[in-house]
Amino acid sequence: MTPPDLPDLQDPVLAARLQHLLDHKTKPLGSLGRLEPLAVQIGLVLGTAEPHLEQPQLVVFAGDHGLAARGVSAYPSDVTWQMVENFLAGGAAVSVLARQHGLALTVVDCGVRHDFAPRPGLQQRKIAPGTADALDGPAMTSAQCLQAVEMGRAVVRSLPGNALLLGEMGIGNTSAASLLLARLTGSDIADCVGAGTGLDTAGVARKLAVLRQVLQRHPDAHAPMQALAAFGGFEIAAMVGAVLEAAAQRRVVVVDGFITGAAVLVARLLAPRVLQRCVFSHRSGECGHGLLLRHLGPDAATPARALLDLGMRLGEGSGAALAWPLLVSACALLREMASFASAGVSQAG
Amino acid sequence: MTPPDLPDLQDPVLAARLQHLLDHKTKPLGSLGRLEPLAVQIGLVLGTAEPHLEQPQLVVFAGDHGLAARGVSAYPSDVTWQMVENFLAGGAAVSVLARQHGLALTVVDCGVRHDFAPRPGLQQRKIAPGTADALDGPAMTSAQCLQAVEMGRAVVRSLPGNALLLGEMGIGNTSAASLLLARLTGSDIADCVGAGTGLDTAGVARKLAVLRQVLQRHPDAHAPMQALAAFGGFEIAAMVGAVLEAAAQRRVVVVDGFITGAAVLVARLLAPRVLQRCVFSHRSGECGHGLLLRHLGPDAATPARALLDLGMRLGEGSGAALAWPLLVSACALLREMASFASAGVSQAG
Repeated sequence: MTPPDLPDLQDPVLAARLQHLLDHKTKPLGSLGRLEPLAVQIGLVLGTAEPHLEQPQLVVFAGDHGLAARGVSAYPSDVTWQMVENFLAGGAAVSVLARQHGLALTVVDCGVRHDFAPRPGLQQRKIAPGTADALDGPAMTSAQCLQAVEMGRAVVRSLPGNALLLGEMGIGNTSAASLLLARLTGSDIADCVGAGTGLDTAGVARKLAVLRQVLQRHPDAHAPMQALAAFGGFEIAAMVGAVLEAAAQRRVVVVDGFITGAAVLVARLLAPRVLQRCVFSHRSGECGHGLLLRHLGPDAATPARALLDLGMRLGEGSGAALAWPLLVSACALLREMASFASAGVSQAG
Repeated sequence: MTPPDLPDLQDPVLAARLQHLLDHKTKPLGSLGRLEPLAVQIGLVLGTAEPHLEQPQLVVFAGDHGLAARGVSAYPSDVTWQMVENFLAGGAAVSVLARQHGLALTVVDCGVRHDFAPRPGLQQRKIAPGTADALDGPAMTSAQCLQAVEMGRAVVRSLPGNALLLGEMGIGNTSAASLLLARLTGSDIADCVGAGTGLDTAGVARKLAVLRQVLQRHPDAHAPMQALAAFGGFEIAAMVGAVLEAAAQRRVVVVDGFITGAAVLVARLLAPRVLQRCVFSHRSGECGHGLLLRHLGPDAATPARALLDLGMRLGEGSGAALAWPLLVSACALLREMASFASAGVSQAG
């Protein structure tokens, strides 16, 4: 796969224009805190000093994991398809939040072990009914991995708007994300593994032991696409493609938590400038997410900072949806606040 | 003043019912993080397992401070009335955010040194055109202080809905808040003073020196109402009344940042159970707010935790408005998410 050659969005003229606008709004300098660099970032992504976020798309990428049979999750694999039904029926957390915020919700069957009836809001793009067991061999063949990445790109091309909110569902996918984090950053797997959907201490220890074996089974899978194929899953590979395509189209990418973050880690290794387009919505309660954010910062010394830190660990895009109004606020404040001059307000002495 | 005798909202039956509902939603136990106790709290305040937040009122209490003439702020006092005009014209940050979230915005002239033309959204309840200089004597007489508290109660009674979002405007009011924090908690004033609207290091040192003198000027003002009268301001006293009235009416009170928090500090000393009704929206960038939150927790060992931490230091109710959708989400998730049983989703093994 040839990753897109993303243009550098650091436009000094536009950046200065955006900062000038913010600095002349009727407020003390810098008093909107992190909303100010957020407004600048969105302005740079959309290439305008009057950014409007339009037709935001929350896409939940779903897939099953062969490794789930090894008992790495507190839940059975059937929960993947059951939750897809729940997303589509409107009863999941992300369904509620998407309704609240007017986010179009699409669920993509990337490789769920279940046959879904077609219906609005569901894209059926199954690569295979679940990945293979990564302890037996690669979770995906190289061809499947490429196919999943391209599929994710096609999903984004099929949807309108200038903002993509990433969500995912897949029993076993914190394991895949932990494996990618450990291998691609050279971190100890013990620092990358958490309770996922709610394992107890003994469960986490079992999961860690399995993941150590998986890493040993794939000693040569160091390049991003090789690691992705080795560890899976289809939904993570599709999100890699979605991030690359959204970045190429200059959409704002709103990253959810640990698993979507792992997809961004792969994507940034393929095309580093994807990070210019990414907003990190929340810091997850999942152990390992802090480490992951340290590897998603703009440079080695600066971790990525998430907007929210509410101890959530649900996935689905729930964190992205919760943070969404902050992005809308950043743009609205930039566009709609009066300046000192226009409002006739005295400036600091 | 006789503070209201607030009923204890710790209803174990309703609390258990709310927790049971959350625990059976289609999500891992506890995975909505701090939204879960927030949903329980709102349910307890409103006295229902199906909480709806209705007709939320964002009220900006405005007043001028005699102490501002001592150079404790980076801005001239005229900015208070100019910003009131800006709130009403729709150009301030809080105006933009209130529009975004459908919050009714009311500005209360508690004691601004300016005559406003009457118009919708403005309540003219001026106690006096600015407080007296607290370095010369009490900022308010006892009668004015009582009058301002009662006025704040009347403001809340005049507005519908079951949620009150607190905002304020008043050049010099971080000084009043710092004085209240220092005196009422026995803290060193140096730990309570920050840059406010943007003082430089020398400016903060000058402000601190003035505030030390003010404390020395009022050695006996230790009781909440005495300290409030000594240090001001009218808008803080009005917010004390607003918090007490909203608490008595079982409205959810959304606290903004440092100055609204100082009003809650006074109110909780008069009626400790106000804290059961308070949601702390954000942690301000103003130095001293962390200390204040430590004194607003449910017990001495537990600081109040704010929902957002975005380095904002604007006041106006901007933090309360930004956090508002999180409260709406907490209620919507509680009411609208499916249970494992209703959605046919398997539970953890």
